[in-house]
Amino acid sequence: MNKLSETKAFGGRQIRFEHESNTLNCTMQFSVFLPPQADTTKVPALYWLSGLTCTDENFSSKAGAQRVAAELGIALIIPDTSPRGDDVPDDSDGAYDFGLGAGFYVNATQQPWAKHYHMYDYIVQELPQLVEQALPLNRVRSISGHSMGGHGALVMALRNEGMYRCVSAFAPICHPTQCPWGHKAFSGYLGDDRSAWQAYDATELLLKHRTAPPMLVSQGEADNFLAEQLRPDDLAQAIAQTGVQATIERHDGYDHSYYFIASFIEQHLRFHAKYLK
Amino acid sequence: MNKLSETKAFGGRQIRFEHESNTLNCTMQFSVFLPPQADTTKVPALYWLSGLTCTDENFSSKAGAQRVAAELGIALIIPDTSPRGDDVPDDSDGAYDFGLGAGFYVNATQQPWAKHYHMYDYIVQELPQLVEQALPLNRVRSISGHSMGGHGALVMALRNEGMYRCVSAFAPICHPTQCPWGHKAFSGYLGDDRSAWQAYDATELLLKHRTAPPMLVSQGEADNFLAEQLRPDDLAQAIAQTGVQATIERHDGYDHSYYFIASFIEQHLRFHAKYLK
Repeated sequence: MNKLSETKAFGGRQIRFEHESNTLNCTMQFSVFLPPQADTTKVPALYWLSGLTCTDENFSSKAGAQRVAAELGIALIIPDTSPRGDDVPDDSDGAYDFGLGAGFYVNATQQPWAKHYHMYDYIVQELPQLVEQALPLNRVRSISGHSMGGHGALVMALRNEGMYRCVSAFAPICHPTQCPWGHKAFSGYLGDDRSAWQAYDATELLLKHRTAPPMLVSQGEADNFLAEQLRPDDLAQAIAQTGVQATIERHDGYDHSYYFIASFIEQHLRFHAKYLK
Repeated sequence: MNKLSETKAFGGRQIRFEHESNTLNCTMQFSVFLPPQADTTKVPALYWLSGLTCTDENFSSKAGAQRVAAELGIALIIPDTSPRGDDVPDDSDGAYDFGLGAGFYVNATQQPWAKHYHMYDYIVQELPQLVEQALPLNRVRSISGHSMGGHGALVMALRNEGMYRCVSAFAPICHPTQCPWGHKAFSGYLGDDRSAWQAYDATELLLKHRTAPPMLVSQGEADNFLAEQLRPDDLAQAIAQTGVQATIERHDGYDHSYYFIASFIEQHLRFHAKYLK
């Protein structure tokens, strides 16, 4: 784990690391924000999963999360969105919604993706082990994300009871087995057997497990992807059917951009802080 | 003035415009943040001048200024850093510190720059006229900026008494006639007669005019450009000699990046709000 850069921000430290990932079979970069409290004590960590086309740098530079994380004493762990490097196969047409920058947080079973595209195991296993060994973290975790990363966060939280104290998401892909982005990604990474897709679908997982950590979802009403790709109503229905502790908030006029995330990241961080104490 | 995009942020509106600039002889883009208060009343405006290599989008997406601007009811007017377009000459070597993205907020007198590079007049005259006619602004103004833009903000405020209620700057180029960036820019845009350079040097202007609007300057101590390019000690000396109302704050460990700006933009906006009432 090599430090590529470190910048002071809000009294804490914004750091970029590089490491050789055994899970992904490639060199990965990720970002971390350590709040000032981490200079003297171990702190809890919020894992942030970004959306399509992003790297670890979009959330780091655009969301404005460090201000409140510094106040609350929460570390931010911000991975990339896919394996990277010359050896890692990409979509043959260079599409933005498959391949590089679009790992969809699954463990691919199909060739040529299966060698590198294991973002699920990377986020749940390798990355926490790595950062909890090297950084002043107290192993208390929560998870959040945006769009494809919101899907990832919900799936990680629903499949790993006890690992995350709570989960939140901005404009997540709530029901990927029922939308074009999900069809394309799951067909490619997981193959045509749709029963394998269920393990990566938040709405289906919730209906199956009927339990979830405390959950907050924020969705902009002016989001271009709302009806076709995101389908928060499907998740809302599953929440109602299962009676889990979860809130989906709709925000008039907000779109899918980082301005939406920036506008509500403080609310999300304060939600996380309640459960990370 | 055509609207290119509009995004809701913190209850207000982040808007990008395009217009034909008579001053710069080219098509220009700029960004505006209108706080929610602007829906019902005219609001004051803070002009933000960005640094080398930036466009109007860096400050918009990275500084996190909209949150506090929305609270305080301040519009943000965020221009580009140079004229733009295929007809606009650039540095022959594509250097980052001259030509496109590096207008240095002067009115160029030398060829081939003199046809387009009139950023001083653009910021002081054309842009305020344009936005105050088209947007709900009450003509109460202040100005701020970063690095090259901090230089620009200080120069605009010192040369136009009464136009800006106050001025602030992050890591400004305080004494450009005495640093490499300034030598290169002023030689190119203004020619070898150094007497013409004085009109664009904050330290020299302050020593000459001996008056200034309320001024706040923030400087990171870990800034790589501090000693050679920025020279805040020269400005501090001029402030001491003239007795104007000005503060230069030094911040241990902070560098030249947007993480530094994000960390202290709230303090700057609250400083501006005092004088924009």
